[in-house]
Amino acid sequence: MGENLFANPEGTREQILAATYRTLRQRGYTELTISAIGEEFDKSPSLVYRHYDSKDDLVLSCLESMLDQYEQRFTEADVTDPKARLSAFLERGFPETVADDRRQFITTLVELRSLAAHDDAYRAHFTRSDEVFTTSLADIVRAGIDQGVFADCDPDRVAFYLFSTLAGAMQRRVTTEDEAWIGDVRAEVEQYLETRVYR
Amino acid sequence: MGENLFANPEGTREQILAATYRTLRQRGYTELTISAIGEEFDKSPSLVYRHYDSKDDLVLSCLESMLDQYEQRFTEADVTDPKARLSAFLERGFPETVADDRRQFITTLVELRSLAAHDDAYRAHFTRSDEVFTTSLADIVRAGIDQGVFADCDPDRVAFYLFSTLAGAMQRRVTTEDEAWIGDVRAEVEQYLETRVYR
Repeated sequence: MGENLFANPEGTREQILAATYRTLRQRGYTELTISAIGEEFDKSPSLVYRHYDSKDDLVLSCLESMLDQYEQRFTEADVTDPKARLSAFLERGFPETVADDRRQFITTLVELRSLAAHDDAYRAHFTRSDEVFTTSLADIVRAGIDQGVFADCDPDRVAFYLFSTLAGAMQRRVTTEDEAWIGDVRAEVEQYLETRVYR
Repeated sequence: MGENLFANPEGTREQILAATYRTLRQRGYTELTISAIGEEFDKSPSLVYRHYDSKDDLVLSCLESMLDQYEQRFTEADVTDPKARLSAFLERGFPETVADDRRQFITTLVELRSLAAHDDAYRAHFTRSDEVFTTSLADIVRAGIDQGVFADCDPDRVAFYLFSTLAGAMQRRVTTEDEAWIGDVRAEVEQYLETRVYR
């Protein structure tokens, strides 16, 4: 998730969300202000306030829209090569090396998730977000089983497990100095897939 | 980690850290203030300030002390039953159900870790913390291999992998509404251990 989001925003609300997305990617949550969005959007902050009550209202709407766009693009029928699809999902989740702009965005997502520990609106978002991503993963695994390329495993269990590992790796990557361990985690995920999922 | 920490604090600094630990467990990071520590400790806030410059200095010293206590207790030579030891580590990390006070403390740890995304001192702490825990895990796996009860696997890889899954599960548990998935993750971890680690 990330590429081509908000590519052609139409209408004021979508343009505001696209500017919010760019700002979150480039500057993070702490530095995001309604004024900064106004500048990025090349409009006055008052126009932003006409559509969104607060910074968190704006950020949550942006997160929801990102998730909607992901959901609209993902359809199980498209999974023609489940193994490649699963690899792409994992590569996106924890690449061995990560570019600075992507690292900034992962950092922002980890910070936003930590808000969910005390904020019901963020918690509701990340509950839905995890459901969407684990459902996609389970759909990929199910397609692999149906097509006879994956072994007879439990798609939901595999999905929850892989997604938890991926969430932990994302979190640890942006909260520690060292990331030599990422290669080890990747190698062990492959080992798990070889013995448990791939036929 | 958690039980019996700061059981018999000696001296003012240790008593302050013990009070900080109790406050972090019961009230969390956001509500922690130097004044609250003074009250908990039954001394004036000025005494706390004489030993610690700021709230974060205090919290970080508390985290460091917790980790030191864990390190002092863990010795590889004590791993007489590697399988039971590994189970206990994982049970501690993601139990199927979690009591309210433990949930509060996991929430606090997830929040503190998110500070590491932007704060070098917290980042240094969580780098060391992850090193300590993954080293313990690897020591347990290595003991199992040496004693002939575990298969010939790479202890470091297994440790980094299990720890990332555990970190992700802790984070997801306190940032989503649902935790039905925990049982699935546990079951899949067991499956992984059966095929990859246990002989």
